[in-house]
Amino acid sequence: MPRFFVSSAMLQGSFAVLEGEQAAHAKVLRLGRGDEVILCDGQGLEYRCIISDFSPGQVSLVIHSQEASRAEPRLQCSVYMGFPKADKLEHVIQKATELGAAEIVAFPCDRSVSRPDRKSLEKKLERWQKIAASAAEQSGRGRIPEVLALNSFAEAVQRAAQAEFSALFYENERTLSLKAAVEARPFATAAIMTGPEGGLTEAEVRTAQDAGMQVCSLGPRILRCETAPLCALSAILYAAGELA
Amino acid sequence: MPRFFVSSAMLQGSFAVLEGEQAAHAKVLRLGRGDEVILCDGQGLEYRCIISDFSPGQVSLVIHSQEASRAEPRLQCSVYMGFPKADKLEHVIQKATELGAAEIVAFPCDRSVSRPDRKSLEKKLERWQKIAASAAEQSGRGRIPEVLALNSFAEAVQRAAQAEFSALFYENERTLSLKAAVEARPFATAAIMTGPEGGLTEAEVRTAQDAGMQVCSLGPRILRCETAPLCALSAILYAAGELA
Repeated sequence: MPRFFVSSAMLQGSFAVLEGEQAAHAKVLRLGRGDEVILCDGQGLEYRCIISDFSPGQVSLVIHSQEASRAEPRLQCSVYMGFPKADKLEHVIQKATELGAAEIVAFPCDRSVSRPDRKSLEKKLERWQKIAASAAEQSGRGRIPEVLALNSFAEAVQRAAQAEFSALFYENERTLSLKAAVEARPFATAAIMTGPEGGLTEAEVRTAQDAGMQVCSLGPRILRCETAPLCALSAILYAAGELA
Repeated sequence: MPRFFVSSAMLQGSFAVLEGEQAAHAKVLRLGRGDEVILCDGQGLEYRCIISDFSPGQVSLVIHSQEASRAEPRLQCSVYMGFPKADKLEHVIQKATELGAAEIVAFPCDRSVSRPDRKSLEKKLERWQKIAASAAEQSGRGRIPEVLALNSFAEAVQRAAQAEFSALFYENERTLSLKAAVEARPFATAAIMTGPEGGLTEAEVRTAQDAGMQVCSLGPRILRCETAPLCALSAILYAAGELA
């Protein structure tokens, strides 16, 4: 069934409207009067609606029931990623959203080649948030993960370390596996952190450790910077029973 | 350390040569006499070498030791994927190779839009195999996964069902989770199968079940056709202790 994320302003009692791009999208989908759609408030609530009317640039709907989204993982897992080059972050945002990330947090690392300045960052964040919204819609999620950009690695580490489980993946770590770390004790919030193309520096790894993050391996194969976070996210959601 | 996959013809006793593209690549990497490189035979053996000489279009090496690759997973997991559109299969080949797939097998499904004919398939297989080789080199693997194309869904299912663990992922399956299936008993070979953009048909799911494959869910979020196999592969390698 077609799904649209809407702001609460579009929900008025038992009625709702789609406007602009979303109304146009409903036309592209060839929806007609009487067809059912789902509206999501992006905060985990879903409204089943029936289309009651079409007018230019507007679709009117009647809400007939409301329920909590069943597609949201219980585990709140944040994906922290050092700024990679070009469109790799966009790829990670799309895929991590599909898989079930709670938020995606980007930040500069010592070896980040791309370091968007404040001005370009504003535009990029807008674009990134749109990618997350579109992936959330397509994958049937009840929430749109927030995409954030932090100013420094230190700030990222401090924030990530507040999760009940927080791990930084480092290719030179050969002792602690993700599995051993994950299975040590249960947790409801997690933060997984990976570096940019050139990897993390030893100083960064120490900073993360000092903040209380665990340093883990994803195995002996060197994963590209855009593969590592999605592999770790898949594994941790699997371990938490969320791929079921 | 730079790694090159070579054919056994390039290994002569304790000497080896790199030619053509690989010799050019060694120059791009600014390697010099005395530098160490690793040659892999693509079958799991690695040769540590020292560069002894450069001549036009050729790099000569002395082999000083040989060992089995430590980056190969013990679990042999084949990734079966219904032909998707355009470059999505290339994406899956690259990422599945990095993650540790033993082979990647493509095949036509009822809802496959792209169905390469025999002639174009030959060229594509060559290109796909190159993508796997390059990803294997970059990720430090000891083997290059083979990329195969089969003629039909039935053939794919018959072949996949021969693995000790074989699962087909179906978005409408809501009872058996991958976790429950994976943890039921240990296995050394696995086959994971996913469909094209439009998903699998009910008839295809029955065919797979009849052949002895398990039908599993990857959870309530609808994953894109290129995301599902990589999520499942990450999860199964995690479960098998291979991300360590």
